[in-house]
Amino acid sequence: MQTFGEAVELASSCPLPQAVGDVAERHISDDLLKVLRTERLKAPDTLQVAPYQATPVCGAITHHHAAGLHIPDEERPEEERMAAINETIQKYEKKLAERTKHHMGYPYNLDFDFGALEGLTRYSINNLGDPFIESNYGVHSREFEVGVLNWFARLWEIDEEEYWGYITNCGTEGNLHGILVGRENLPDGILYASRETHYSIFKAARMYRMDAVKVSTLETGEIDYAELEASLKANAGRPAIINVNIGTTVKGAVDDLDRVLDILKATGYTEDRFYIHCDGALFGMMMPFLKQAPMVTFRKPIGSVSVSGHKFLGAPVPCGVVITRFRHVLALSSDVEYLNSRDATIMGSRNGHAPLYLWYTLTRKGYAGIARDVERCMRNAHTLKSMLDQAGVKTMLNELSNTVVFERPREEAFVRKWQLACEGDIAHVVVMPNIDIAKLEEFVQDYISSRARVAIAAAKRVAADARAAEAESGDGDDDSA
Amino acid sequence: MQTFGEAVELASSCPLPQAVGDVAERHISDDLLKVLRTERLKAPDTLQVAPYQATPVCGAITHHHAAGLHIPDEERPEEERMAAINETIQKYEKKLAERTKHHMGYPYNLDFDFGALEGLTRYSINNLGDPFIESNYGVHSREFEVGVLNWFARLWEIDEEEYWGYITNCGTEGNLHGILVGRENLPDGILYASRETHYSIFKAARMYRMDAVKVSTLETGEIDYAELEASLKANAGRPAIINVNIGTTVKGAVDDLDRVLDILKATGYTEDRFYIHCDGALFGMMMPFLKQAPMVTFRKPIGSVSVSGHKFLGAPVPCGVVITRFRHVLALSSDVEYLNSRDATIMGSRNGHAPLYLWYTLTRKGYAGIARDVERCMRNAHTLKSMLDQAGVKTMLNELSNTVVFERPREEAFVRKWQLACEGDIAHVVVMPNIDIAKLEEFVQDYISSRARVAIAAAKRVAADARAAEAESGDGDDDSA
Repeated sequence: MQTFGEAVELASSCPLPQAVGDVAERHISDDLLKVLRTERLKAPDTLQVAPYQATPVCGAITHHHAAGLHIPDEERPEEERMAAINETIQKYEKKLAERTKHHMGYPYNLDFDFGALEGLTRYSINNLGDPFIESNYGVHSREFEVGVLNWFARLWEIDEEEYWGYITNCGTEGNLHGILVGRENLPDGILYASRETHYSIFKAARMYRMDAVKVSTLETGEIDYAELEASLKANAGRPAIINVNIGTTVKGAVDDLDRVLDILKATGYTEDRFYIHCDGALFGMMMPFLKQAPMVTFRKPIGSVSVSGHKFLGAPVPCGVVITRFRHVLALSSDVEYLNSRDATIMGSRNGHAPLYLWYTLTRKGYAGIARDVERCMRNAHTLKSMLDQAGVKTMLNELSNTVVFERPREEAFVRKWQLACEGDIAHVVVMPNIDIAKLEEFVQDYISSRARVAIAAAKRVAADARAAEAESGDGDDDSA
Repeated sequence: MQTFGEAVELASSCPLPQAVGDVAERHISDDLLKVLRTERLKAPDTLQVAPYQATPVCGAITHHHAAGLHIPDEERPEEERMAAINETIQKYEKKLAERTKHHMGYPYNLDFDFGALEGLTRYSINNLGDPFIESNYGVHSREFEVGVLNWFARLWEIDEEEYWGYITNCGTEGNLHGILVGRENLPDGILYASRETHYSIFKAARMYRMDAVKVSTLETGEIDYAELEASLKANAGRPAIINVNIGTTVKGAVDDLDRVLDILKATGYTEDRFYIHCDGALFGMMMPFLKQAPMVTFRKPIGSVSVSGHKFLGAPVPCGVVITRFRHVLALSSDVEYLNSRDATIMGSRNGHAPLYLWYTLTRKGYAGIARDVERCMRNAHTLKSMLDQAGVKTMLNELSNTVVFERPREEAFVRKWQLACEGDIAHVVVMPNIDIAKLEEFVQDYISSRARVAIAAAKRVAADARAAEAESGDGDDDSA
């Protein structure tokens, strides 16, 4: 069996399985030949590696083919239809409640109560286009959106008049936007990001046809600063667009922004020749509330910051915030020939409920309330680590992180019960505000029991093999006497 | 004053105003100089052209600066906070109700009742990644999503096993995906789309660094087939990625798919050298239910179709559906070096409530219910056109459309009251299922009154000028006697 260190290494390096589809496929003739979806998705039954779609998929993809609920084409009486619908929804709601209760793996805060906003789902709220220019569509929530954006501008220290931003559909959209703004300002720029960066950053590079450099990582998951420096030096002729991780997906590692800025200075990149996007996903929302943490601030020469809204704050729908400098965004919205539009967002129509959720949470909790949530999560993460350590489980917890990394459980049922995000041979628990000590206790007890079951089964297999070997050779003790 | 024909022409040709920002700006030095947002957005007070952010902005952008609701930083007692929040929400809900009632301009069906799903907003439902591969995050709605996708696959005649698709955040995401799939399969392809195409298509070309050809349009708003043919001939050396509009945004014009296919054949493009994306936004959801309409179907050699979910079907959040051939999507999900992921969506985290809204509406209404909605909308669109015609207003209504185009009202207050989408000198009403004859009657009466006020004011200005001229020359009739 692998050591824990080897597993951590593996998680960042193992290649994509062949089962996913081979590149050659796209060059074959296009004469409407049939390529069947389920055949392609099927992975060997012997492999049971769980997919974590928010990080690079590693190892084989298990099938878990989602079956669709059939929608009947024929007409049925209203009453019959509604009865069937209500039954389906009731069953579904029970599943949601159970799955929400047993959840440890993803960085989502599932503890929220938006009861006060419930009546608003009767309206089709759409903030289409720019948050700062009202469109004629009156059913919008721009006043809430701009309020939330102003709050984040204060958090990241940029004047209201100097920023531009919007509430996105998720962390990926914030990253896609940040990298696009970087490319539009430095069209010949090379993208630099560490190999443990969220995959949306490299997705952006591919979408935008940018040259990208994948930089190695340190054991902690931070970018390898020496390698970054060497790479910047080697490509000194072209501008740099750098993604700085404020908490990686798997290990919660924070790239050191100040050190990256020092490296840029040392390698001769002036401020007009680099653009930094900070991917704050989860931790970008927590770090400003930690006293000892380095500051992500627009007082430093960064270009954009994005965070998710459904992660630390929690929301029924995925959402996020991206803030950039207004002068940067002009490059996106001003091109007559192509865009012919003032809309600098990635999406056109935009979910108007998301700003309401964020506004509500920020207003209700306030700065002090969020700070309390952050402190409790950090404390509970250390409690989880200590519990696992004391129980003899190898763990890792970065100083600036609420993501506890540990050996991947071997029982698939356990992984699925607790909805653990796994990569290679490691798993993690992200200690969010909805996870209290009682839940951690239940989880650790369950984890140790699962390990014991696996260990006992392994030992028993050895015994069974030995017994079989003895029986074959005929020289064992005879139980049949 | 312009003629109506001139205005229609103008709407498609007028350049972006200088106020929006000039291209030169992005090349200036990057020494953190201040560029202030509101200064940039301010348009001359005399210009009152309303922006329609879902189409290319034309004419000056009016300011309409959205003010943010302040989120206090200081701590306040729970009771005080909740009282303030509830007061804000109650006031906001009244605004939403009023704005929903007076709405004519955007193709959104505001008539829906998702009361049966209300309890589900307590859950953070997220279908992250591929709809067909379950992730370990258990709080998802893939069974509903795949059910909806299968329904659309039946509608557009593609086998369940041969399609791939997902529920998007909006029409734009469907277009971004369709064009990306086209580019990944034909990396050297040139994008062709008509000038009245939704701006997201040209946004895609710019994002993806593709060469794009903007083809002229006929009077109806359809693509100019002769110009398309000439352009395809001139670029015969490179593959073609063609966007076909199933209803343009402003005039509801439907590009003739069969004619485009004939042109491709005539100009020597074999099926492996073109990719067709059908932008179905609103009308792609209506056309299959009209007997005389040409079919959008995967039995023809098209690559992808997208529609919006919040448009014809109606939903509290913007959403949409994109369907493509599974074999095409392999090009997106298979590249190890860049993506290292099985996720072929544009977004990573995906709103899990949107599939529930679509599933609910499709199941409740059924095929027959949707057909009835479509028929009523088409009938009411003709009623609106006849009412305006009879009242002496110039109108336009394409045969396959529920979008009635007419002269732009001159009173800004009227435009804003009814939330009309305007472009240049034309406005339109999209007759959606929530608009009945009584509402059309109210609207037309209001429109004619507004026109009369403007006409009377214009006549009075002439009289006042004449009176002033007389007074100056001293030879008028003397009222002071």
